[in-house]
Amino acid sequence: MGGKRIPTALTIGDPAGIGPEITADLVARGPDSGADLYLVGPAAVLEAALVEAGAPCPPVVAVEKILAGFVPDRFPVIVDVGAPGETYPAGGPSPAGGAVSGRAIETAAAMVRRGIVEGIVTGPVSKEALHLAGLRHCSHTEMLAELLHAPECQMMMVAGRLRIVIMTRDMPLRQVPAAVTGERIVTCVRVTDAALRGMWGIERPVISVAALNPHAGDGGVTGTEEREVIVPALEALRAEGIDARGPLPADTLFCRALRREGDAIVALYHDQGMIPFKMSGFEAGVNMTIGLPAVRTSVCHGTAYDIAGTGAAGSGSLRAALDLAVACCRTRAAERAV
Amino acid sequence: MGGKRIPTALTIGDPAGIGPEITADLVARGPDSGADLYLVGPAAVLEAALVEAGAPCPPVVAVEKILAGFVPDRFPVIVDVGAPGETYPAGGPSPAGGAVSGRAIETAAAMVRRGIVEGIVTGPVSKEALHLAGLRHCSHTEMLAELLHAPECQMMMVAGRLRIVIMTRDMPLRQVPAAVTGERIVTCVRVTDAALRGMWGIERPVISVAALNPHAGDGGVTGTEEREVIVPALEALRAEGIDARGPLPADTLFCRALRREGDAIVALYHDQGMIPFKMSGFEAGVNMTIGLPAVRTSVCHGTAYDIAGTGAAGSGSLRAALDLAVACCRTRAAERAV
Repeated sequence: MGGKRIPTALTIGDPAGIGPEITADLVARGPDSGADLYLVGPAAVLEAALVEAGAPCPPVVAVEKILAGFVPDRFPVIVDVGAPGETYPAGGPSPAGGAVSGRAIETAAAMVRRGIVEGIVTGPVSKEALHLAGLRHCSHTEMLAELLHAPECQMMMVAGRLRIVIMTRDMPLRQVPAAVTGERIVTCVRVTDAALRGMWGIERPVISVAALNPHAGDGGVTGTEEREVIVPALEALRAEGIDARGPLPADTLFCRALRREGDAIVALYHDQGMIPFKMSGFEAGVNMTIGLPAVRTSVCHGTAYDIAGTGAAGSGSLRAALDLAVACCRTRAAERAV
Repeated sequence: MGGKRIPTALTIGDPAGIGPEITADLVARGPDSGADLYLVGPAAVLEAALVEAGAPCPPVVAVEKILAGFVPDRFPVIVDVGAPGETYPAGGPSPAGGAVSGRAIETAAAMVRRGIVEGIVTGPVSKEALHLAGLRHCSHTEMLAELLHAPECQMMMVAGRLRIVIMTRDMPLRQVPAAVTGERIVTCVRVTDAALRGMWGIERPVISVAALNPHAGDGGVTGTEEREVIVPALEALRAEGIDARGPLPADTLFCRALRREGDAIVALYHDQGMIPFKMSGFEAGVNMTIGLPAVRTSVCHGTAYDIAGTGAAGSGSLRAALDLAVACCRTRAAERAV
């Protein structure tokens, strides 16, 4: 693949999950992604997985050396975040597994802050393991938002040309209507607009915002949040030059997106965005965080502890995440150069 | 098509919409559906549409004659519910259009009550027109629930093997969590179970009930309705021999249904069920009401006033609704005969 090479941190995720083996599979298979890969995780675990996959083991570099500015002359390299003597019980979440997953994310964030990498690709972690390890935040998005000082970042699901931002994430449905505020909509759409311009090079992005209620409130009969909250927020956004459309009835909105209308959809809550996302090409889907100072993509599946080590896991989603990260980093570099 | 002929009332819907022309197209095209069709609507409008479609005009019979027990010796027939001198302005909803749509539904319900028909297939009506006509209920489902004394009937969307019951229909999202009661779940699943047995002949139906919250509440982290309300309701249902499963995370549930797991899904609210339904083969979709004393199916689209009379409307959804009604009536007859 031609073009500028993209220095990228790939965190291998929970060591007891499928993260190490899909990383090894990705390295073994090729083809070259265009990324200069820093594989961030416990070296011993990753090396074992690479041997299993029949891939040569890349050199191991200490975190401190990388953060001090050392640039390897060839890639990939392994950035070892394992602690001496630390082991990770197979088959499920553990405090040690959570701790090392967390250190990998922290290391990747530090590499972004020091300008060492432009992209982060994350393997699957376990919320439970992160919690067992005593971490305050138990998801990639929240950790990266804090580590990279980007509280307004948003989660975007990408499958081909379908891009869905999930505005209120894992919250009880009961809390959703009150969380749909004008301020949150404005922030979310602004971040989406900037991402579409900066990472996809779309000159004048069209952003479709879903309604909260059936039939977009049907003139007030099936809900008032549309006219009271969403419509004024979208008017404010349009006044600042953002092509925000809606609120659109959610049951037809996603069909229209599949027919290539609009550049991104803002779904107001988890199921509203995740149901159509998973129905529309989940296998090749990528989860990303927009609004960070780096491009961050992720596999779209979990740790799959139950099949780890069986060879059943495929690296397709990780590869899709890596390819998207490289493409977005390249566009970002080109947009900045203009 | 072989098998028992099924006496069926087909209401043509709002006279200013596409209902008359798609009915005429269905009659003109054939092939025989296996239904003995009573076309219920204003005769003058339907005759004009039939002439336009190049179909012969069937005999017209007065409502009173049909309700008095007259059985035509060949089908279709037109059951005239138009009032003398009544006209229906083209292009939009009108009081007269709403009134005659309402009379057609009332007539079809009366035909069911007297055992004249086993199935009702309904063309598209306008809520606004029904409202303008001063009707108390402005939807087929609510009207039929009252006219056929079946307050517990439910709306089911059918596309091939995908069957989705929408438990709380057109209500503001804000009201949904409180409306998800154990009683409502039990009633809804019972009606669904009976429909799958009676109208599809499924011996031991598997019914998947969606969760309300992301990740089915994630052990209480993202909501408590699952453990407090839904789980106890499903336990009660299983205790009475109904194979009700769940609560299942909605974002993967519909993908599993598309892979042919389970016989029906209960979605707890409009968007949760309608987003996946419309994404999965909307063109051939049928809307039906289950829990009525008759089989009732409906087109899955609206009046489409804007294209009425242009010849652009297709009769595919009406045909799918008719075919499903005939199939369900036949299974029902066979099940009763056992």
